[in-house]
Amino acid sequence: MSQPSFVAVDWGTTGFRLWVMDAGGQILNATQGPFGMSRLKPDDFGRILEESLDTLGVDEDVPVVICGMAGAAQGWCEAPYLTAPTQLEILGQQAVVVPNTRRCVRILPGVKQMNPANVMRGEETQIAGLLHQSPDFGGTVCLPGTHTKWVRVADRAITSFETCMTGEQFGFFSETSVLSHSMILDGWSDSAFREAVRTATRDPAAIARRLFAIRAEMLVADQTSAEARATLSGLLIGQELMAVPHYWQGQSVTLIGAPTLCEIYLRALDVMGVGGRALEVVSMTLAGLTAAHQQYMSHANA
Amino acid sequence: MSQPSFVAVDWGTTGFRLWVMDAGGQILNATQGPFGMSRLKPDDFGRILEESLDTLGVDEDVPVVICGMAGAAQGWCEAPYLTAPTQLEILGQQAVVVPNTRRCVRILPGVKQMNPANVMRGEETQIAGLLHQSPDFGGTVCLPGTHTKWVRVADRAITSFETCMTGEQFGFFSETSVLSHSMILDGWSDSAFREAVRTATRDPAAIARRLFAIRAEMLVADQTSAEARATLSGLLIGQELMAVPHYWQGQSVTLIGAPTLCEIYLRALDVMGVGGRALEVVSMTLAGLTAAHQQYMSHANA
Repeated sequence: MSQPSFVAVDWGTTGFRLWVMDAGGQILNATQGPFGMSRLKPDDFGRILEESLDTLGVDEDVPVVICGMAGAAQGWCEAPYLTAPTQLEILGQQAVVVPNTRRCVRILPGVKQMNPANVMRGEETQIAGLLHQSPDFGGTVCLPGTHTKWVRVADRAITSFETCMTGEQFGFFSETSVLSHSMILDGWSDSAFREAVRTATRDPAAIARRLFAIRAEMLVADQTSAEARATLSGLLIGQELMAVPHYWQGQSVTLIGAPTLCEIYLRALDVMGVGGRALEVVSMTLAGLTAAHQQYMSHANA
Repeated sequence: MSQPSFVAVDWGTTGFRLWVMDAGGQILNATQGPFGMSRLKPDDFGRILEESLDTLGVDEDVPVVICGMAGAAQGWCEAPYLTAPTQLEILGQQAVVVPNTRRCVRILPGVKQMNPANVMRGEETQIAGLLHQSPDFGGTVCLPGTHTKWVRVADRAITSFETCMTGEQFGFFSETSVLSHSMILDGWSDSAFREAVRTATRDPAAIARRLFAIRAEMLVADQTSAEARATLSGLLIGQELMAVPHYWQGQSVTLIGAPTLCEIYLRALDVMGVGGRALEVVSMTLAGLTAAHQQYMSHANA
């Protein structure tokens, strides 16, 4: 069996994923847990990392590269943002080394945009992974999730980006709000979804009154809970699309995210006559962390 | 001291308010509690009502009139909806009598609309109160709250209405979402609010990307938490206004609600060059319940 070369970590708001990688880019071992930044104090990060690596038997001389919210001001050790437009080849070089750790631990910076104000932490690493695999890529990348990012990439750089809180809103409306009484956990109707995307994109200003109508349609008409949930998703994604039309109109969109979620966004784009493709988020994250590790090594050896 | 004539109750999703009224429309006594429909089973309603009236020493021959969610399918005893357009003079006559109670307890119906689908329970009684006091009123009534209602009133009838979940959304974004990290409980900036109303109404399609920007403006620029909270309010109310323009453009709006909330809506309407006035919600509710009680009495005596 090959030797560990470095440890890759994606440390987000709600979760923690860790992979032990060899020099050839293969995964030797992996672990994960619900130890996201939102429930940790700064002192907790080092302990969780060391316990995980002890459990997996990773020697102390194996370096660690981390992306995500561990580098936020409220995280483990702040990794100052790069400012868009920014090349991503410098991600590894701009990493901060966490002080007072037994092993070499580096956290990659996020990216900020000054006008309009915006921030990302984690998605830049996935895009770096895409550019590591396809250096000549240019165009729009959509990273759907709790806070969906729309990113323009050109000349190996992030040139601009936008954030829509669509995933967080869907969770609120479907699980907590009054609409939750009209939904079941995994109901779905593709025709209701497509119709809702059409409705929201045709008249985006009307969204505020269309949401409660999902509840009312159930009380006074014969809408099913599967139709209700798909309608909510279609209205919110349709609203999102109309907020960022310059990112997808007349283009082909590259999605990076969970496969099921990417498929839903591809269907919404299809309603608008736009094509795209989906890339799996873990492979992009690992490619980005590997690229950063390699940049660091070549920088250190130069 | 005058004798109790009837008991008026506003029984909503989250709360319960009760007033003992005399024949002249004066409040003799009152109580309230957090016993809303959402935390009660059908059997709980009668017990809470009797305990409240025992505590206040109200005889069993005093009748009770209730409006609100107690009449919902998931409430105490379903009071079928009236269908808009509908006169409100029949509210009292269409009340359901709750079976198997020690005293006469009636629950007023809500109002539904078939196309577009919509429902209300409680607001119709406030509007009936307005019409009881001003029988010739016609125009738009806005009832801001968890689920804000916009209602057209003509010829003593509700002719159409819309619902926007603005209050419930404000609670989610300001208290639970990632934006909550940028807010303090009661911070406010009037200039930020007005600017946000202008921003949202000028380009309502962009709302999906403007919400996360509230967080980003705090991380990369110098926005205060008071400005953040007022901006959130202005964006959401501005979005709401653009969803129901036919209810306020070129008109004067009558608001019924909590005074602070009505004042915020009046400021938003002022940004759009529209005037209005605010009526206090408790007095309208009591006027509506009193009118319904009187209708019932005259109906019973006819």
